[in-house]
Amino acid sequence: MTPTDKPLAGLRIVEVSSFIASPFAGLTLSQLGAEVIRVDPIGGAADVNRWPLTADGESIYWTGLNRGKRSVEADLRSEAGQEMVQRLVTESGPGGGILLTNQAGRSWMSHTVLSRIRPDVITLEVLGRTDGTPGVDYTVNAGLGFPQITGPVDHAVPVNHVLPAWDLACGLYAALCISAAVRRREQSGVGAHITLPLEDTALSVAGTLGYLTEPQVNEHSRTGTGNDVYGTYGTDFTTADGGRFMIVALTPRHFRDLVDLTGVRDAVDAVEKALGADFRREADRFTHRAVLNGLFEPWFARHSTADVAAVLETASVLSQQYRTFDDVVADGVLADNPMFAELDQPGIGRYLAAGFPAAFEGAHYTTGPAPSLGADTPAE
Amino acid sequence: MTPTDKPLAGLRIVEVSSFIASPFAGLTLSQLGAEVIRVDPIGGAADVNRWPLTADGESIYWTGLNRGKRSVEADLRSEAGQEMVQRLVTESGPGGGILLTNQAGRSWMSHTVLSRIRPDVITLEVLGRTDGTPGVDYTVNAGLGFPQITGPVDHAVPVNHVLPAWDLACGLYAALCISAAVRRREQSGVGAHITLPLEDTALSVAGTLGYLTEPQVNEHSRTGTGNDVYGTYGTDFTTADGGRFMIVALTPRHFRDLVDLTGVRDAVDAVEKALGADFRREADRFTHRAVLNGLFEPWFARHSTADVAAVLETASVLSQQYRTFDDVVADGVLADNPMFAELDQPGIGRYLAAGFPAAFEGAHYTTGPAPSLGADTPAE
Repeated sequence: MTPTDKPLAGLRIVEVSSFIASPFAGLTLSQLGAEVIRVDPIGGAADVNRWPLTADGESIYWTGLNRGKRSVEADLRSEAGQEMVQRLVTESGPGGGILLTNQAGRSWMSHTVLSRIRPDVITLEVLGRTDGTPGVDYTVNAGLGFPQITGPVDHAVPVNHVLPAWDLACGLYAALCISAAVRRREQSGVGAHITLPLEDTALSVAGTLGYLTEPQVNEHSRTGTGNDVYGTYGTDFTTADGGRFMIVALTPRHFRDLVDLTGVRDAVDAVEKALGADFRREADRFTHRAVLNGLFEPWFARHSTADVAAVLETASVLSQQYRTFDDVVADGVLADNPMFAELDQPGIGRYLAAGFPAAFEGAHYTTGPAPSLGADTPAE
Repeated sequence: MTPTDKPLAGLRIVEVSSFIASPFAGLTLSQLGAEVIRVDPIGGAADVNRWPLTADGESIYWTGLNRGKRSVEADLRSEAGQEMVQRLVTESGPGGGILLTNQAGRSWMSHTVLSRIRPDVITLEVLGRTDGTPGVDYTVNAGLGFPQITGPVDHAVPVNHVLPAWDLACGLYAALCISAAVRRREQSGVGAHITLPLEDTALSVAGTLGYLTEPQVNEHSRTGTGNDVYGTYGTDFTTADGGRFMIVALTPRHFRDLVDLTGVRDAVDAVEKALGADFRREADRFTHRAVLNGLFEPWFARHSTADVAAVLETASVLSQQYRTFDDVVADGVLADNPMFAELDQPGIGRYLAAGFPAAFEGAHYTTGPAPSLGADTPAE
């Protein structure tokens, strides 16, 4: 291993997986330098044709999540196929012996069986719910509480998130667990049997961030605040021509800046005094946000989007005009960002594909295209 | 190191940080066995009193994110304070030499300066936007496109997510990068200078999941689908007494199950034939979801929440009644889950605190309480 090697170079991970969390974990490990072999049943797993598709019916989803991997097809119901996967997992030198899967319950690839063949094997099983029953991002999220405090405050029904945030977190936890287990194995020679339920990912994060602590120590949890940020000052405003900006005043300096640029210093000072508030404190800015919103709104409503953008550009208060995904691409955000590199993906075409978000020594790691299904299946 | 050691045992990480992403990274590394020392300016960083608070004004937020860490207060503007932090980072044996921070731009703790003192130092800087300017979850998200496709389809304005999903992902990427860089250092002796912008975290994930590929290869991106899951069959229904359930039919078996339990087999078959659809395909279930929603709705509307729950309990289709955070606690979800353990947190009280979501060899790692600010400050 040389200093310029990627940090997980030399590892070989077998991924028997589908959907989001596990393939995302495999992709992430691959971005950090591991060789990742995705194993699918003949013809592909349930996610092989997942939307979004191109006009020609190729899966943007599947190719996006499986970039840089090798692909092996195997008849997972036959003994020969199962033995091939066991060999792939257990026979690949000191950096091998790693299985990542979301398909627990198959005894032939259980930790018990694999560790009999290779005692230092590392297995990670992504599960659904804590009790072992299936669960997906949308059901886990519904059961947890976030949809009930998302969306307009006058909207009576829950609002689901669109980003599969729990799959994403679960995939990153899975990659981290494998990386940490590899470090321990390289130090001590021991393998690891790791289980990671999607539901526990969500419960752990919600606990850490306080959402599940409030009902225990404060009698009840917070209510929704619409687009206002909880606990500090942040909200969105519409301009004269319908542009919409998210504004966050996290520090006293940000807030002074917002007050000055909207020209309402006298009114804010008077309100602060009359209410006995101290707007240097984020708690007070949050508590009195309805009043503050009302004081700032007219300035945004009076000015054009271009004027607002120009003023905010030079201000310290945090701001961002809402954009669509189309806007992000059209604005050149990807073209200007060194993390994106052109990828020629068979079936999809050329596009700017994202690399790993962290840079090591200033370098963004990129990966190659997704394989065609079964491209690396060993000859009989 | 023994087989029962946690996988990151023996590491010592200095965290000069605030808000969510970096403290969450530090907590995560601590859960995996690293010693984490959080360094704050005298009196605490900007997040020391963050909401949610207890009735007595103690921060549930701060204590939640800093469990299991040690706490050092230092005058970061004085030479003595800066030297103390440099020593903490560089002088702690083979597992030390690791800095995690969201406060880049201080030359005295830059990678350049620290690596002169300790050549194998690993530094990770969480940044805001790609160009080095500040950015937070809410502004990054507004600029990316998710709020425009979140919320009711007839709702004209963007809907922000409540979970700070990008902070969360960024913190997990940070923990992973440090774990991977430690593995490389232990193999080769080289340190690492890692930079991780919050904005790049969001762009990378949105790229990988296809949101930023669609506008490049398909002319335009997807539109919002409200609470319907994109690309498969999933939506929510209300019962006779106002209970609300999220339902996901990911596989043909799930879908058959939903059709049978709602008693609309004949109607679904007739519609499938008339439309030339094949509801074994998730794409067809998604395309014709309005019709399917209409066929399933009456069964939910006719039955009580208790009856619906009882039927779904034995069905294979994925389902979950929406709950509030209060419901989750009241239903005993935490008490029944071995990942949660009682924690006696000074200032907050006793509560069930979440451990690490993955179990190693069946064991959930838990951490102790958060320190009081400055509890581990070295004597002069």
